[in-house]
Amino acid sequence: MADETARLSIDAVNGMDAETFVAAFGEVFEHSRWVAEMAFASAPFQSLSAVHAAMQDAVEAASETARLDLIRAHPDLAGKAALAGALTAESSVEQASAGLDRLSPEQMNRFRTLNAAYVERFGFPFVMAVRGADAARIIAGFEGRLGNDRASEIHRALAEIGKIAWMRLLAAVVPAPTGRLTTHVLCTATGLPAAGMPIALYRVGTDGARALLGSFTTNPDGRLDAPALAGADLEAGTYEFVFETGVYFARAGLATDAPPFLDRIPLRFSIANPERHYHVPLLVSPWAYSTYRGS
Amino acid sequence: MADETARLSIDAVNGMDAETFVAAFGEVFEHSRWVAEMAFASAPFQSLSAVHAAMQDAVEAASETARLDLIRAHPDLAGKAALAGALTAESSVEQASAGLDRLSPEQMNRFRTLNAAYVERFGFPFVMAVRGADAARIIAGFEGRLGNDRASEIHRALAEIGKIAWMRLLAAVVPAPTGRLTTHVLCTATGLPAAGMPIALYRVGTDGARALLGSFTTNPDGRLDAPALAGADLEAGTYEFVFETGVYFARAGLATDAPPFLDRIPLRFSIANPERHYHVPLLVSPWAYSTYRGS
Amino acid sequence: MADETARLSIDAVNGMDAETFVAAFGEVFEHSRWVAEMAFASAPFQSLSAVHAAMQDAVEAASETARLDLIRAHPDLAGKAALAGALTAESSVEQASAGLDRLSPEQMNRFRTLNAAYVERFGFPFVMAVRGADAARIIAGFEGRLGNDRASEIHRALAEIGKIAWMRLLAAVVPAPTGRLTTHVLCTATGLPAAGMPIALYRVGTDGARALLGSFTTNPDGRLDAPALAGADLEAGTYEFVFETGVYFARAGLATDAPPFLDRIPLRFSIANPERHYHVPLLVSPWAYSTYRGS
Amino acid sequence: MADETARLSIDAVNGMDAETFVAAFGEVFEHSRWVAEMAFASAPFQSLSAVHAAMQDAVEAASETARLDLIRAHPDLAGKAALAGALTAESSVEQASAGLDRLSPEQMNRFRTLNAAYVERFGFPFVMAVRGADAARIIAGFEGRLGNDRASEIHRALAEIGKIAWMRLLAAVVPAPTGRLTTHVLCTATGLPAAGMPIALYRVGTDGARALLGSFTTNPDGRLDAPALAGADLEAGTYEFVFETGVYFARAGLATDAPPFLDRIPLRFSIANPERHYHVPLLVSPWAYSTYRGS
Repeated sequence: MADETARLSIDAVNGMDAETFVAAFGEVFEHSRWVAEMAFASAPFQSLSAVHAAMQDAVEAASETARLDLIRAHPDLAGKAALAGALTAESSVEQASAGLDRLSPEQMNRFRTLNAAYVERFGFPFVMAVRGADAARIIAGFEGRLGNDRASEIHRALAEIGKIAWMRLLAAVVPAPTGRLTTHVLCTATGLPAAGMPIALYRVGTDGARALLGSFTTNPDGRLDAPALAGADLEAGTYEFVFETGVYFARAGLATDAPPFLDRIPLRFSIANPERHYHVPLLVSPWAYSTYRGS
Repeated sequence: MADETARLSIDAVNGMDAETFVAAFGEVFEHSRWVAEMAFASAPFQSLSAVHAAMQDAVEAASETARLDLIRAHPDLAGKAALAGALTAESSVEQASAGLDRLSPEQMNRFRTLNAAYVERFGFPFVMAVRGADAARIIAGFEGRLGNDRASEIHRALAEIGKIAWMRLLAAVVPAPTGRLTTHVLCTATGLPAAGMPIALYRVGTDGARALLGSFTTNPDGRLDAPALAGADLEAGTYEFVFETGVYFARAGLATDAPPFLDRIPLRFSIANPERHYHVPLLVSPWAYSTYRGS
Repeated sequence: MADETARLSIDAVNGMDAETFVAAFGEVFEHSRWVAEMAFASAPFQSLSAVHAAMQDAVEAASETARLDLIRAHPDLAGKAALAGALTAESSVEQASAGLDRLSPEQMNRFRTLNAAYVERFGFPFVMAVRGADAARIIAGFEGRLGNDRASEIHRALAEIGKIAWMRLLAAVVPAPTGRLTTHVLCTATGLPAAGMPIALYRVGTDGARALLGSFTTNPDGRLDAPALAGADLEAGTYEFVFETGVYFARAGLATDAPPFLDRIPLRFSIANPERHYHVPLLVSPWAYSTYRGS
Repeated sequence: MADETARLSIDAVNGMDAETFVAAFGEVFEHSRWVAEMAFASAPFQSLSAVHAAMQDAVEAASETARLDLIRAHPDLAGKAALAGALTAESSVEQASAGLDRLSPEQMNRFRTLNAAYVERFGFPFVMAVRGADAARIIAGFEGRLGNDRASEIHRALAEIGKIAWMRLLAAVVPAPTGRLTTHVLCTATGLPAAGMPIALYRVGTDGARALLGSFTTNPDGRLDAPALAGADLEAGTYEFVFETGVYFARAGLATDAPPFLDRIPLRFSIANPERHYHVPLLVSPWAYSTYRGS
């Protein structure tokens, strides 16, 4: 996901003194070094999630005024600051990754209109974790949030700031190798684990292109013998499982159409926190399926 | 799906006399013209499904001996006949489309071993609707069906023959324009229809390549204002809906990770009978979804 | 659900002048007649939902101070006011229906402790729509909401006040007969509607006792020929469908254990707004099922 | 479930010689002692499931004639034999438990009509595992199976005979204590395990009456700390979990109606083989839920 030589280890973070820590992470919450200063009191950290949690706690413990100032420290999306180059380096990268630096004149107008309405209604800039989002998602967020009451919107803006902070931390520090990706296939037509089903796992790029990461076959319990990804191999990003259900139905003797209604099932999902366990099971019959984030 | 100039209309089928009908459809059930002969008694037909149903009724009304002869009329998959070129034209095309004409020596050996075991156990050749299936699915079918008792396997072989017949009819006759493809998106986090969700529909080729067929947005009831495909536009084959759930979650104000666990959901499914209604809904929250063939 | 002779019709409400309207509905929002006063400007009303929406709009348009005063107008749950009898008549009935007038000394202590912590943290009383809730649900609400930040908790308290208001309106006015209860059974093992399935519908009392309201059988599309309940027969409250899946599986020839894993499926749900459409479908195979509020 | 003093242990079964074994189990397959004779060759048995599997293998290895004779050894349901008292003791009990000894004259006529049609079509009596089934399920089975072809119906009749045999074995021998009943609650609105949810487990009698077996609360992973039932406590029969979802939603701060659409969710299911693991999870949001037999 990133140039590992450029990312710190958690050990390196835990070796920092307060000044170094704040120098490294003072901009994780935009122009608000006090967040890193307070979070440092919780060092050492067992994980990057723990660093983030300490920072979130600092924000939650802050006064309403300080939290409003934190929101106000953010640039307008596609606003004057963006045009004039006054963003933090992090904000520039994030806004570019959402395509906000190459909007058509019409899109730019729509953004300006929504931005103006938002600032007029709430008195602070619209903040959204836009890295990886496209213009349609950002406009949808704008439109939905314009209807909030002010208290709800403050809550929501702080939640977005928390997500931005997490993505910034992840770009700077290698997460702890505690995460894993697992799956489990159950056949709802037979009530049994779906054994012997081939599964492929792909990494999906921001352009939608897929790269094969591995090929697996379910064991008699319908699981893989080991996690599909674990530890350092589990990076934040978008993935796709492809389940060869047609092969399973043929072996299990389940009646299907020709071709089967469900022959190859893609499950596409994103991993935001690679320190966590992502269990992504498939419940399937020849005519229906479901999935969920399990545990 | 096919060169329409080469396919008959149902009206043209209904204009045939018995001899012409049997000449046209006598090989829909392999080397078994009696099926077409009996089915002709049910003419005229309202749909291609009705032609197929009349043929299936003929097979079901036949004696056990006649049904066994029907199974035995089929070539061995990848067997001597295939090598020697004695297949019906239809069988040759079908076996080629499953890649059975370009197996590796190892695969060919595996097929021969399974074929021999199957013929030894049941006394008739292995029949499977292979058009569109790959070697993995065919081998899975072989392995699963070798464990059947004989009565079950006769039942299964006749079901496969019915599917082969349907695909042959579809290649020869334009189906009635009665089918349609619809969807409906319900949000299980809010208990409400998911309004304003962008959806794309793709046709998926046998090589997995996708071609965009249309772009839609859900209305306030979570449905499309018209079928995604209907009538002559609805062809047998594989399709993929892509639901822009990330856009919907952003507008609805539902909390998600960044990126959302479920940002774009692909639903891939195949339509075997374009005269039918395929309702393919999505029930979705930020952490789970399900789909099914509805009505 | 109520003594209809004691409830007003919507026509009667629409015939009121401002003074009568406020006299009738001034306590729907506790000790806050201004809500009814502002809502009256939206008369006439097509439905009770419209009355409620007009009142909610008034609350949303009010100042933060007025909204806080609205929260503060509510009695402490199980607090001094309850003991001293200073509640509005509506509040007394609601707290009695949740069993708060007959707590054990230990429960009373737990309530007092949570109440004190809540008031200390937020500076206003804990408000929850408790009619029909038991002590476990109320304590869970207390515990969960103590962790909120203040802005979120104000939002939540106002949402609870909106639900209390709705239940008060429903006790006073006969809703418009626009609602209906429907179902639909799809078999995920066959991909077909589940036809011929017997279904019973029960009303469930607050003590859990069930009274049979009707018996139905699914038609060939897996639906009932008419709503299970509609119009005046659809009252707020708790219902249970019982689906005779064992009968369906037997007729459809689907393999099951003996007894079937799923022989009779109860779906229990509550209707809060009888002016709405409640679609409660069942997706079922012999080994799995799901339901959801549809549309 | 049964008077344990009257049931044998598996050790006792394994201590039998061939003659004793056949004397004990010769009627598990109706009037067909050869099944027990052949199965004895597989002794000793690790479980009652293994005894059953050995008997099923004997049936599958038998000639078509022997299998047809096995079907023909069964009495007509509600037929002349039942009236005249010529049933095996096991058959009498089973038919009484399905209420077939107290049919109304109209029901008796319907049974006779179906019975006659069935025997005419297939040439052997209708066999169905009726213990615990009611007249509606049996009639549905009759109607559905009358449409089968003969080979499918032979297959189906033997499957029913296998289920009858299992229930007879279970009435005679205490199963191995290897089974357990577990659950797991995942919240699809938050993507997290549903912690702190109260759950009750009931045994459901043949009259529908419920007896409380235990009360539990989900742990932080959404599971119970131990199986809800295990070993000798897990008996064949019907159970109901009741999930206090309203309590969970209140604590988790999820918005619901008042009362919640899903306040208490009953999951009713039957356990046919107490030597197995039954995992019965709940995936739930305030507006939707699903369950399935897991592993």
